[in-house]
Amino acid sequence: MDDIPTFDDVVAARERITPYIHRTPILTSSYLNQLIGAEIFFKCENLQKVGAFKARGACNAIFGLSDADAAKGVATHSSGNHAGALSFAAALRGIDATVVMPTNAPKTKKAAVRSYGGKIIECEPTQAAREATLEQEVARSGADVVHPYDDPRVIAGQATCVLELHQDIDDLDAVIAPIGGGGLISGTCLALSTLSPQTKIYAAEPANADDAYRSIQAGEIVTRDAQQSVADGLKTNLRPRTWHFVSRFVTDVLLASEDEILDAMYLTWERMKIIIEPSSAVPLAVMLNNKKLFQGQRVGIIITGGNVDLKNCPGCK
Amino acid sequence: MDDIPTFDDVVAARERITPYIHRTPILTSSYLNQLIGAEIFFKCENLQKVGAFKARGACNAIFGLSDADAAKGVATHSSGNHAGALSFAAALRGIDATVVMPTNAPKTKKAAVRSYGGKIIECEPTQAAREATLEQEVARSGADVVHPYDDPRVIAGQATCVLELHQDIDDLDAVIAPIGGGGLISGTCLALSTLSPQTKIYAAEPANADDAYRSIQAGEIVTRDAQQSVADGLKTNLRPRTWHFVSRFVTDVLLASEDEILDAMYLTWERMKIIIEPSSAVPLAVMLNNKKLFQGQRVGIIITGGNVDLKNCPGCK
Repeated sequence: MDDIPTFDDVVAARERITPYIHRTPILTSSYLNQLIGAEIFFKCENLQKVGAFKARGACNAIFGLSDADAAKGVATHSSGNHAGALSFAAALRGIDATVVMPTNAPKTKKAAVRSYGGKIIECEPTQAAREATLEQEVARSGADVVHPYDDPRVIAGQATCVLELHQDIDDLDAVIAPIGGGGLISGTCLALSTLSPQTKIYAAEPANADDAYRSIQAGEIVTRDAQQSVADGLKTNLRPRTWHFVSRFVTDVLLASEDEILDAMYLTWERMKIIIEPSSAVPLAVMLNNKKLFQGQRVGIIITGGNVDLKNCPGCK
Repeated sequence: MDDIPTFDDVVAARERITPYIHRTPILTSSYLNQLIGAEIFFKCENLQKVGAFKARGACNAIFGLSDADAAKGVATHSSGNHAGALSFAAALRGIDATVVMPTNAPKTKKAAVRSYGGKIIECEPTQAAREATLEQEVARSGADVVHPYDDPRVIAGQATCVLELHQDIDDLDAVIAPIGGGGLISGTCLALSTLSPQTKIYAAEPANADDAYRSIQAGEIVTRDAQQSVADGLKTNLRPRTWHFVSRFVTDVLLASEDEILDAMYLTWERMKIIIEPSSAVPLAVMLNNKKLFQGQRVGIIITGGNVDLKNCPGCK
């Protein structure tokens, strides 16, 4: 298919977004290493601007626009972190951002959009409603649509995360990242397939929202609507552009239950002293479920975000 | 007085402890910078081994012992993080650690001691009881006493924290650290008085445990017994060795109320995505109380620890 980003796009993305994002730290935990029997390197995108890796793709898309296109603003649909990230990047460039958000999006994520000056249009919490509402808005405004994951600029931007991880940590046997629509995993595949093709790539998915797992089993995209999981960033489905990468480069999709995700989130808070959102805990949860698979290995985990409503938090037991 | 550590001791400490500790990251938050009107650099010792800067002083003391002295073990009294840190460092060297802890010490901090193989002796929650109990134990075992702050090896070890901060961040106008017994502040004074004497040093203290504030006012050590604060690491009193540094090099002691401390802790969790314990939130709380004092300045804050009982947490409202 057209418009598949290349490694050159990743290199260009890195140069483009460097002024606007943090180079996030990589943390380790002796306790978790011993618990699992592996050496784990956590790339902490919860400490990224807007509290999530999504700042990377959003900045790459927005700062790559011509002045004429930028003047019409940008628009997207997103349940969460991409919404805040696009609003943040748009504010940096001084242009408008409009975000279609499902009515059940977390309050903190809506508040983030507003705090950066983004405009919210609410819709029903289905993929179809999100896309239809966005189409209407764009027909009206002419804004550039920056899809949360099905966009080559976004995938190239997200790829800069594993690029940094690879620069800082040698010889990773595996990298694990959560999978929702597949933007981060696609970027991870894009960068590693050039930089370190021997590194295995695992996608971590909630068992409650296992469309990617089913897709790998079926050998084609399987979509499931209205998936529900505490990992609210991972309820979306793959698209052909992300399936391109997932089908070619992902070794396996590993699953975790809702309780396992919350336990892993809580364990990370307690032992690593960082706030991560449920979606970010899925990779650790699947490692705990598959200790033998990772025994003695050097494993990178991408902690995708830390935007959780602490006042109404599923992990605070 | 005798036994005041020198800058050479700090350099030696750094070399001695480097294999055993993390070089912790320094984080920033655009949101907090804007809120306060300053540029703040958070040195994140909550991400240190054992979740607190105390790993530095403990490792320096223990790895500086002769083999003969080490063989008798080490002992201390501590309400918290020093206890875990000493047990951690002793385990690394393969020697015994005995810790006198007040009966009201947080459960998580007792659990930390046990997890590293340290032995706990409980006592009443007063300074006098702690010291008497420790004396008895040492008379029995001959263990080397590593006081949580009134020890030149510990002060030199804690000084390595601001040494790293100074290496990473130029031209700090001020550094703020919490003050309890004064070990960290003394180390901060020790290092900065050589490295950057123009940098002002502020001690941040709970108004409920304001012995250091009263000491500065009185021009001599004022002790207060059984101080109670949510910042459980800061209830101890100064000693002559820490007063030596505080009286010479600390510009001011700034106070925060219990609510202000919890609000600052919560704000840090939410905006910076890191877990900090109440004691660590006092510097941010005093900045919020004294915005004018820090306007336009470059300020380092030492986040001292992240060991908080999440299941029984005063900040989870």
